[in-house]
Amino acid sequence: MVSTPLIPGLPATIAWENDCLSILDQTRLPQETAVEKLTTAEEVWRAIHELRVRGAPAIGVAAAYGLCVAMRASLHLPMSEFRARLVAQAAYLDSARPTAVNLSWSLKRMIQAAQASSAGDPTSLLSALVDEAITIHHEDRALCDGIGEHGVALITEGCGVLTHCNAGALATTGLGTATAPIYKAHDAGTRFRVYADETRPLLQGARLTAYELQQAGVDVTLITDSMAASIMAQGLVDLVIVGTDRVAANGDFANKIGTFGLAIVARHFGIPFYVACPSSTLDLQTATGREIVIEERRDDEVTHLYGQRIAPENMKVRNPAFDVTPYELVTGFITERGIVKRPFERNLAALFAMEGDAA
Amino acid sequence: MVSTPLIPGLPATIAWENDCLSILDQTRLPQETAVEKLTTAEEVWRAIHELRVRGAPAIGVAAAYGLCVAMRASLHLPMSEFRARLVAQAAYLDSARPTAVNLSWSLKRMIQAAQASSAGDPTSLLSALVDEAITIHHEDRALCDGIGEHGVALITEGCGVLTHCNAGALATTGLGTATAPIYKAHDAGTRFRVYADETRPLLQGARLTAYELQQAGVDVTLITDSMAASIMAQGLVDLVIVGTDRVAANGDFANKIGTFGLAIVARHFGIPFYVACPSSTLDLQTATGREIVIEERRDDEVTHLYGQRIAPENMKVRNPAFDVTPYELVTGFITERGIVKRPFERNLAALFAMEGDAA
Repeated sequence: MVSTPLIPGLPATIAWENDCLSILDQTRLPQETAVEKLTTAEEVWRAIHELRVRGAPAIGVAAAYGLCVAMRASLHLPMSEFRARLVAQAAYLDSARPTAVNLSWSLKRMIQAAQASSAGDPTSLLSALVDEAITIHHEDRALCDGIGEHGVALITEGCGVLTHCNAGALATTGLGTATAPIYKAHDAGTRFRVYADETRPLLQGARLTAYELQQAGVDVTLITDSMAASIMAQGLVDLVIVGTDRVAANGDFANKIGTFGLAIVARHFGIPFYVACPSSTLDLQTATGREIVIEERRDDEVTHLYGQRIAPENMKVRNPAFDVTPYELVTGFITERGIVKRPFERNLAALFAMEGDAA
Repeated sequence: MVSTPLIPGLPATIAWENDCLSILDQTRLPQETAVEKLTTAEEVWRAIHELRVRGAPAIGVAAAYGLCVAMRASLHLPMSEFRARLVAQAAYLDSARPTAVNLSWSLKRMIQAAQASSAGDPTSLLSALVDEAITIHHEDRALCDGIGEHGVALITEGCGVLTHCNAGALATTGLGTATAPIYKAHDAGTRFRVYADETRPLLQGARLTAYELQQAGVDVTLITDSMAASIMAQGLVDLVIVGTDRVAANGDFANKIGTFGLAIVARHFGIPFYVACPSSTLDLQTATGREIVIEERRDDEVTHLYGQRIAPENMKVRNPAFDVTPYELVTGFITERGIVKRPFERNLAALFAMEGDAA
């Protein structure tokens, strides 16, 4: 059982209890805290695709458990067919969203665990897979903790921190990535302010980050994405911390749409810009940000909100879910192993040279 | 009668017919095209305050007619009391919104017209006031036209233009300010793309700019405010044109929240950034942007949308309706008398040295 909630009043983002996978449906927050059981591969795929479970690290954990759930229907198969089916189901789950590296990273680890397993029958192999998923889950919590420990010193008495989207506890199974230093500083009694960008189109900042920080008693102020420059010009922001869905080898990184513009604005005001980056999010196979595939989502995410139309009918729309911020705009990457400074290409590679050797 | 609609299918922003003032209720667009009659000073004040009529130039015209409407209830007063009442009602209407200079500019002109009038009784004076309001209304259309004529050359075949908020036909009684070059270029057969920022919190870009450009047959794509950097990075934007609510003597200017960040991002990509500025929006009495009062609006504009809560309850919010962009980020001001380049302080003053001598 891995399900201790970290935020008062909120169920865990992802829970594994009595061999059952359940998630907190994040599309219904903050109006409703609804827990949903996922019992088939299709349900897991849809939950990831429709952002009911979201946030790069949480997607990784959900996919690992999801693969176990998916394979339960195949326990009657002969071992060779079970293994073939495992690879197919992993590929299927991997197709739920393209940008976050954690999804394929986690599924690859599950396949490797199966390959390394000497289990002689599907039931034993599934048991090994569940163990690996639980390990990934525990690691995710430890990664958040490590990011928090290394990042907490950046948050000083009286300072203002701005964040975008939700790289919070709700995006992980622990303290979050961008929020981990915030929670650690809050626990340490430091007094500081957080500004949360609402993060259109899906409002993860308003619905999730503002919510979880408010629940935890952090001093958080909600702003629209367009207010960041104005708030910075007033001298209210000393530090930006965002999460990421994929960091390329050179330090270019993908994150929620709006991050790139925010980084440019922070640079204009000389405000340090940090990226919280667990090792699971670093993709050394991707040389630069140009190679990162950006998910383009449905028009109605822009033209409608909660079913209400907010734009003309038949409106032409662009809806890239992410943008890629070039490494030049990054002050440092807060990882579970320390803060990585320039040159990023060399230092990221060095820090994660022993990949798999996670904390 | 001054009410010819400029956009197919849309009633005029402001109409004066048979001595009656009516406005198109812009809070209900694009779902509904509702025309509202305004018959008292309080109704006019509320229509401006609640953004049912909005856009700096349109507010100026509405206030001029609104003052006439307001004074109709005082026709029974002796002349000296009528004149005192006129000044009081103008001050009242001027309090509806603080940032746009056009509101006080237009009301000052009305008071000056009254002072200059030799009318011997309230009815004759009111008639002179109506004439002045109609003059302001006609001038507004001419200003838009002039901006369009001077700005049209900036829009070339195949280019991409990005705009923020609605400085469109709906913000004026003519072709708009930022949109005037767009409409002129479209009429001239130039093929180009427009990107409209949705403009949170009140979505004037999605509800109004996207709407009026789509109605007019312009190739317009709606994006969230946070997508501008991503769209620019793709090389899709050659030019930004925004409107303004007040330009200080040094060229600093107030406009809808988000304009400042957009200007910083445009500068990052080396994209020219123009401000459409009718002479009625230039405020030479205000030396720099630091002196411009920024309206802070209600929290629920950020936390709710169409009555639906989109953020946690009791959320702390900032909601500045405008920001001030420093002149350093401006490429030029598109005015009805030509495009003003640097040094702005000297050239703005020179161009408008003969203020009141409007086109």
